[in-house]
Amino acid sequence: MSAEMKGRLIGVGTGPGDPDLMTVKAVKAIGSADVLAWFAKEGKRGNGRGIVEGMVREGTIELPLYYPVTTEIHRAKPEYIGQVTDFYEASTRAIAAHLDAGRTVAVLSEGDPLFYGSYMHLHVRLAKDYAAEVIPGVTAMSGCWSQAGLPIVQGDDVLSVLPGVLEEDQLVRRLNDTEAAVIMKVGRNLPKIRRALAESGRINDAIYVERGTMANTQMMPLASKPDDDAPYFSIVLVPGWKGKP
Amino acid sequence: MSAEMKGRLIGVGTGPGDPDLMTVKAVKAIGSADVLAWFAKEGKRGNGRGIVEGMVREGTIELPLYYPVTTEIHRAKPEYIGQVTDFYEASTRAIAAHLDAGRTVAVLSEGDPLFYGSYMHLHVRLAKDYAAEVIPGVTAMSGCWSQAGLPIVQGDDVLSVLPGVLEEDQLVRRLNDTEAAVIMKVGRNLPKIRRALAESGRINDAIYVERGTMANTQMMPLASKPDDDAPYFSIVLVPGWKGKP
Repeated sequence: MSAEMKGRLIGVGTGPGDPDLMTVKAVKAIGSADVLAWFAKEGKRGNGRGIVEGMVREGTIELPLYYPVTTEIHRAKPEYIGQVTDFYEASTRAIAAHLDAGRTVAVLSEGDPLFYGSYMHLHVRLAKDYAAEVIPGVTAMSGCWSQAGLPIVQGDDVLSVLPGVLEEDQLVRRLNDTEAAVIMKVGRNLPKIRRALAESGRINDAIYVERGTMANTQMMPLASKPDDDAPYFSIVLVPGWKGKP
Repeated sequence: MSAEMKGRLIGVGTGPGDPDLMTVKAVKAIGSADVLAWFAKEGKRGNGRGIVEGMVREGTIELPLYYPVTTEIHRAKPEYIGQVTDFYEASTRAIAAHLDAGRTVAVLSEGDPLFYGSYMHLHVRLAKDYAAEVIPGVTAMSGCWSQAGLPIVQGDDVLSVLPGVLEEDQLVRRLNDTEAAVIMKVGRNLPKIRRALAESGRINDAIYVERGTMANTQMMPLASKPDDDAPYFSIVLVPGWKGKP
């Protein structure tokens, strides 16, 4: 089959949670795709699919991609890497079959597809053989600082985006070496993150946000949060911008 | 006048350039605002205003906010700080007059309003007295790495967002201490940025993008760029994600 007859791959950023924070381009892509692929835990629908509810054309083929494992096995173990690699290979084959049949496939990605998104694992495997486009999305962190009305960086500020899995001494060192920070993937790392913020003298500036821009969002100064319960997709914001004119 | 009768302030992210990369919420806000405020150089229309062309209702009051100075005076000089502070104060008064008259004021901000955006200077002055909302936008950097199809961060990667004005030794140090980097506000800093990337061994990974997602965008590996001409709003991307499963 000639390249012209093949379908197109589109990585679609669904934004931080509020469906109105999807881009116009993303809404169009979802409404016109032949196949809608989305990542989820087995048996669940996935946050991305939830966001686009009501935008999907009747007759669209749904292609759920169920992670074989999420946090049950440590991500550095060979067993985890093997299972996840097999999963991305199988997902790639499933999508390629639709593309070969001339169908446009939209793959949902919460936030922005190339910013910590699972979509990129498919993109690097498919973009060399098929026409592929990435539609950027509003990141979860932008959704969170906007909801908080918190200016995050200005002027010459450095912003450090730090995964919450970093070791405590690394978090402290990096917090001491940046104007602003966003700590991602908080979850069970929250006690360690609190200690690192306290040690770097930033704890009283830190804002905790979970499920930013969604109906059930929670937001508070981290110092006021009475417990260490946090979903995986919660975020801690440490604003820069000290020299406000 | 009671608080209920006052107008509402909305900081609206216009995204990276392509009007279709505005959020649904931003398009609605612009179409329903009584007053549309936007930053620009004296006599120009500003990129933000250009992006929303065609979305503005007839009868909308336009409120251009002309910077008194941009890069002609160094931003650390008291003269610069004084003029810019006066400008934000005057802009605040102009917007407050509309809010007091019960008008909803949408302030355009390229990219995301609280991420290096001028809007935040108005937000911190007005949000304490008026209802204020921030509509996040797709950042320029997301627009650039999506256009390039370049996965920027994955897994435990650290992302450092670095203003191009940083000193060369600081750029080198920070490039050596991060998986991924985005260098903002490239402009006349490009020769220095090149040297820092070469010294940190990252020059061959770096992608140069100017006017990302706009019709006249330019994009190439930085090592292949034959000159050092770069507009202020160009970006250099250094991707992370080395351990691709």
